[in-house]
Amino acid sequence: MTTFSFLDDYSEGCHPDILQALLESNLIQHAPYGSDTYSEEAKASIQSHLGGVRADIHFVASGTMANIVAISSCLRPHEAVIAVGSGHIVVREAGAIEATGHKLIVVPAVNGKLTPANIEAALAGNAHFPHMAKPRLLYLSNATETGTVYTLPELRAISTLAKQRGLILFVDGARLGAALSSNKSDATLADIASLADIFWIGGTKAGALLGEALVVCNPSLKEDFAFHMKQRGGMLAKGRLLGIQFRELFGTKKLFFTMARHANAMAEKLAAGISSAGYLLSAESETNQVFPILPNSVISMLQGGFQFYVWEAQGPDSSVIRLVTSWATEERHVDAFLSKLPPA
Amino acid sequence: MTTFSFLDDYSEGCHPDILQALLESNLIQHAPYGSDTYSEEAKASIQSHLGGVRADIHFVASGTMANIVAISSCLRPHEAVIAVGSGHIVVREAGAIEATGHKLIVVPAVNGKLTPANIEAALAGNAHFPHMAKPRLLYLSNATETGTVYTLPELRAISTLAKQRGLILFVDGARLGAALSSNKSDATLADIASLADIFWIGGTKAGALLGEALVVCNPSLKEDFAFHMKQRGGMLAKGRLLGIQFRELFGTKKLFFTMARHANAMAEKLAAGISSAGYLLSAESETNQVFPILPNSVISMLQGGFQFYVWEAQGPDSSVIRLVTSWATEERHVDAFLSKLPPA
Amino acid sequence: MTTFSFLDDYSEGCHPDILQALLESNLIQHAPYGSDTYSEEAKASIQSHLGGVRADIHFVASGTMANIVAISSCLRPHEAVIAVGSGHIVVREAGAIEATGHKLIVVPAVNGKLTPANIEAALAGNAHFPHMAKPRLLYLSNATETGTVYTLPELRAISTLAKQRGLILFVDGARLGAALSSNKSDATLADIASLADIFWIGGTKAGALLGEALVVCNPSLKEDFAFHMKQRGGMLAKGRLLGIQFRELFGTKKLFFTMARHANAMAEKLAAGISSAGYLLSAESETNQVFPILPNSVISMLQGGFQFYVWEAQGPDSSVIRLVTSWATEERHVDAFLSKLPPA
Amino acid sequence: MTTFSFLDDYSEGCHPDILQALLESNLIQHAPYGSDTYSEEAKASIQSHLGGVRADIHFVASGTMANIVAISSCLRPHEAVIAVGSGHIVVREAGAIEATGHKLIVVPAVNGKLTPANIEAALAGNAHFPHMAKPRLLYLSNATETGTVYTLPELRAISTLAKQRGLILFVDGARLGAALSSNKSDATLADIASLADIFWIGGTKAGALLGEALVVCNPSLKEDFAFHMKQRGGMLAKGRLLGIQFRELFGTKKLFFTMARHANAMAEKLAAGISSAGYLLSAESETNQVFPILPNSVISMLQGGFQFYVWEAQGPDSSVIRLVTSWATEERHVDAFLSKLPPA
Repeated sequence: MTTFSFLDDYSEGCHPDILQALLESNLIQHAPYGSDTYSEEAKASIQSHLGGVRADIHFVASGTMANIVAISSCLRPHEAVIAVGSGHIVVREAGAIEATGHKLIVVPAVNGKLTPANIEAALAGNAHFPHMAKPRLLYLSNATETGTVYTLPELRAISTLAKQRGLILFVDGARLGAALSSNKSDATLADIASLADIFWIGGTKAGALLGEALVVCNPSLKEDFAFHMKQRGGMLAKGRLLGIQFRELFGTKKLFFTMARHANAMAEKLAAGISSAGYLLSAESETNQVFPILPNSVISMLQGGFQFYVWEAQGPDSSVIRLVTSWATEERHVDAFLSKLPPA
Repeated sequence: MTTFSFLDDYSEGCHPDILQALLESNLIQHAPYGSDTYSEEAKASIQSHLGGVRADIHFVASGTMANIVAISSCLRPHEAVIAVGSGHIVVREAGAIEATGHKLIVVPAVNGKLTPANIEAALAGNAHFPHMAKPRLLYLSNATETGTVYTLPELRAISTLAKQRGLILFVDGARLGAALSSNKSDATLADIASLADIFWIGGTKAGALLGEALVVCNPSLKEDFAFHMKQRGGMLAKGRLLGIQFRELFGTKKLFFTMARHANAMAEKLAAGISSAGYLLSAESETNQVFPILPNSVISMLQGGFQFYVWEAQGPDSSVIRLVTSWATEERHVDAFLSKLPPA
Repeated sequence: MTTFSFLDDYSEGCHPDILQALLESNLIQHAPYGSDTYSEEAKASIQSHLGGVRADIHFVASGTMANIVAISSCLRPHEAVIAVGSGHIVVREAGAIEATGHKLIVVPAVNGKLTPANIEAALAGNAHFPHMAKPRLLYLSNATETGTVYTLPELRAISTLAKQRGLILFVDGARLGAALSSNKSDATLADIASLADIFWIGGTKAGALLGEALVVCNPSLKEDFAFHMKQRGGMLAKGRLLGIQFRELFGTKKLFFTMARHANAMAEKLAAGISSAGYLLSAESETNQVFPILPNSVISMLQGGFQFYVWEAQGPDSSVIRLVTSWATEERHVDAFLSKLPPA
Repeated sequence: MTTFSFLDDYSEGCHPDILQALLESNLIQHAPYGSDTYSEEAKASIQSHLGGVRADIHFVASGTMANIVAISSCLRPHEAVIAVGSGHIVVREAGAIEATGHKLIVVPAVNGKLTPANIEAALAGNAHFPHMAKPRLLYLSNATETGTVYTLPELRAISTLAKQRGLILFVDGARLGAALSSNKSDATLADIASLADIFWIGGTKAGALLGEALVVCNPSLKEDFAFHMKQRGGMLAKGRLLGIQFRELFGTKKLFFTMARHANAMAEKLAAGISSAGYLLSAESETNQVFPILPNSVISMLQGGFQFYVWEAQGPDSSVIRLVTSWATEERHVDAFLSKLPPA
């Protein structure tokens, strides 16, 4: 008997429509390096969601690459990034940003998030120029690493502060679909485009085989952008592969949003069922991650049929676990999990 | 009427077997970051071609990424690379290697190739230590940028010199399939593995959607290799996408070699037909590239039905053009080209 | 009337013996780039203080340069540094270490110092390989940024842990003279050499015009060291200038130690006088820095005759100030300060 | 008997006036990091030589540091430098510029110099964007590595081309004093300031103990310049040491120019004497370097009393040697050399 994995949202391949599009287009010849027709169509579709912002859009293969290219293309050598301690670039990318020469100024997260107060503190504590690197770029992830979501007022406050202080606002959107589709979110893609200087829309964790769409909103950051993608190894010869996927994600079916809403709904159902069974959640579930607190004996039993991370101990006999749902999680998987869960 | 492109070998998608494998595996859950079953199977298949060499094998998304990771993982900051002036890392990667901090010592190519004499000259001319960066790694591409192929004696001579002088031999194999399948080549994958310290096997230009297989042969270069992939943005969350493609390329059908032989055969047929029509080639066609010298009027006429690069002027009225064939070039495309070509 | 500065320990030129040596040697021709006679003599004198350790010794112009060269020569690209948040490389070098590509893993300081517990916590929190940079080098300053001193047992405990965990121990010795000459210190230069893999002896803050001596103790770190100095711009054509200064500092008069003891004694006298006047110190004075807590009205009055930093507010009406003494601080300057200080 | 060295122009200490100034100022307290009075005075004196150009001036310790800071502060990551193959940054700085991430595009030198034709060729050959790094900065040394000098028309032609093509013109002035004092030069410091975007004035090879003055002429390059100096380890705590030297060099005695004229005159006298004795020079002597062609037997005999580099063989029995004069070369040393030289 095989187990079902709630480990992450990148355990499966991709939405079947993407594979179908690959099949249909396979032998059609296209220009390389992102100048193919599919990439153009995908860019136009994404652009149509950006409100009045005229952005430059580029596709790269991975989230770490998106962060490397975005950050290193924006900064001069002495400029630093402000990020929360749990930020993906801080603890999950093997020093990728420092490898491009830039300091990360780390601040404590508040519910996973960067706040104006934390930013102000970082600016005040890093003002002894030129002995200190110059804070210049704000990095935040939406959804955050712990699955929380920035509200529109929160994003506006950060963006306003950024503009006042001459800072670039960069949004890591590895799970932007989950964030914008959350019940907790009142922001749209157009809001993100109007508030951030540069951001990216994650495909890998949203039902694509791979690929992230970098969206450069601030005109001053657009010049020569493709050089950075090429130099960092982020430009694919068969750029069509990325283009066709985002064409499908943002095509008439709006798969990007429907898949994200589905994943969130599966998480919500898990959370509701776990609560009904009498267990607490260590945090409210805002996107596609659920953090229940379960007795260790129950956890052991559940591990017979399901894969998930044991996040941290919660007293001597209980632990927090993390359950992640995805576009590919079916309702029957959720039902199976809940049916195995004994009442508290 | 559409034109057929002989511009490059990455204008189409991938071998249909790869798409079929993606379809069949799509909803099966797998571990991320290259620890999936397909990657393991692919590594075992590649390993079976390496003779007695026990290599570590890793998959990355692009050729520039393969070069970045291979070179930067091997070198200390003061160590430099020796490469020919036409080398891909020298003129086609936007300074990717320098961006990791390393100098390129450029030597003239001989028929596209690095030679022991050129290496010796570079060593002699860069020996004023510590004022000069220390030459430490030899970079060569097989096939070369102009489609020529290293013979086994040539590779042995370079490898012997490298060992004598304490140099690392690194082979860029973007078109290694074409090289090893060439009539001019007497080398096998096992030979490459026994002579090079590290090399890569190109998938992108050999019928995959994307992906290159880095093969680390020298035990001293294996430690911590995955960190470099992660740090440079070269590790895919859905590593299964790369694994499954190399599983197909090196599976029972040996598609990697059959596709390369096909591409070479198409180039050979083009070359023979062009010669029969009375035109000269500017260089012998050793792999999947053909460089005929044609009158400019003929070139203009051919451009009505075909795409190709005009490489360089050859006198006032003629030019060299470059025709590239691929796994997807069909015999009818070659025939169509030759049928349009008027006798000289 | 001019004010006397207690701002730092680099406000004056250098010990007169150094100027005298420069005068006497000025027109004697010497080999460049550190291969001069004076550098050789200086290295021999330093070596004589290192106990049984056979070190390689190199001179560079600045402390930031010493840190850049030491750290970047030791590490592979994915390797990170553990340092306390107040560390000079963390907050006073404009991102110099990150500019060489390496992540700093920051831990809280305990009385300004790195501790085994903090190191263990950093290792435990950065073990998700290869997604996290690999902790590899421990950076500590002795004396610390706040003037505290590591005891020999403290250093031994850190060194033992480093060896157990495969970590490199690097000591920034910008104020190593002050530390080793402190009443609180039971360590010698030979102890530092036996416990650290690499360290440096600061000249700039110890009575030289400029210059720091890098001491490479671990044989595996010695190879090619000079390349790194050259590549980072840290090698002086007239290396004699650095050699002659360290020859004087470590010559028969042992000026390096006598000047440090003098500076510490001046700080001690300041601290004692301030305490006698009825004021508290925010921290015990272990080297050449004193941190009294004074009423803001007293601070304003003192600023008429003396320069010093107001370090931080201490309640609404008082502040901590920092007084730094040096080799050039005369007893009369201390007396003058104390005579202006009204009883509490 | 000791030998006299014609090896280089940095074998002695410094002009006695500089030592005298150090003596007189030694115990006067000054602000650190270049904000001292002497640095201000030195900057004002240099500024007075720059014609109408309002420059920002900064002092760093070494020539390699000056090149690192100048180049890395000007360029974005994908931008490259054009330089001749004999350029100091190309072959004498251990890969220092590449270590900051930038490609060097190397062109052949014409009499040691960069030319508009070579620049145009480099631009044409590096235009396949974004696959090639973007040429952005022209690096030239005046005097060149072989002691030749740019005329004002030559500099104007390069500067005009730079402006037309959007390139930054950077002049390495390690031997700028020798160049501007050459009989072959019709350019002044004001000309350099009006034509270059950024340049530096070498002190180390012009009679200072150490130090180079970076002169930033183009307003767009001035912002945040000090951060780069700090980050690269090029800022001295006792910046007064650099300031006081340039104050002396550019003070009322104009030592910078008088010392350079002296060195050139000594080289001229050497060249004239060698020619009178019947020997050829391999190149005309334009500054403080002389390249006579001498029989190997004569070279061996001369090595008994003098040190110099044997530059390259010239047929089986003769070689080119290099003689370098300096501010400290006395006429009696030149006479001694000529008196040992037998007639051809």
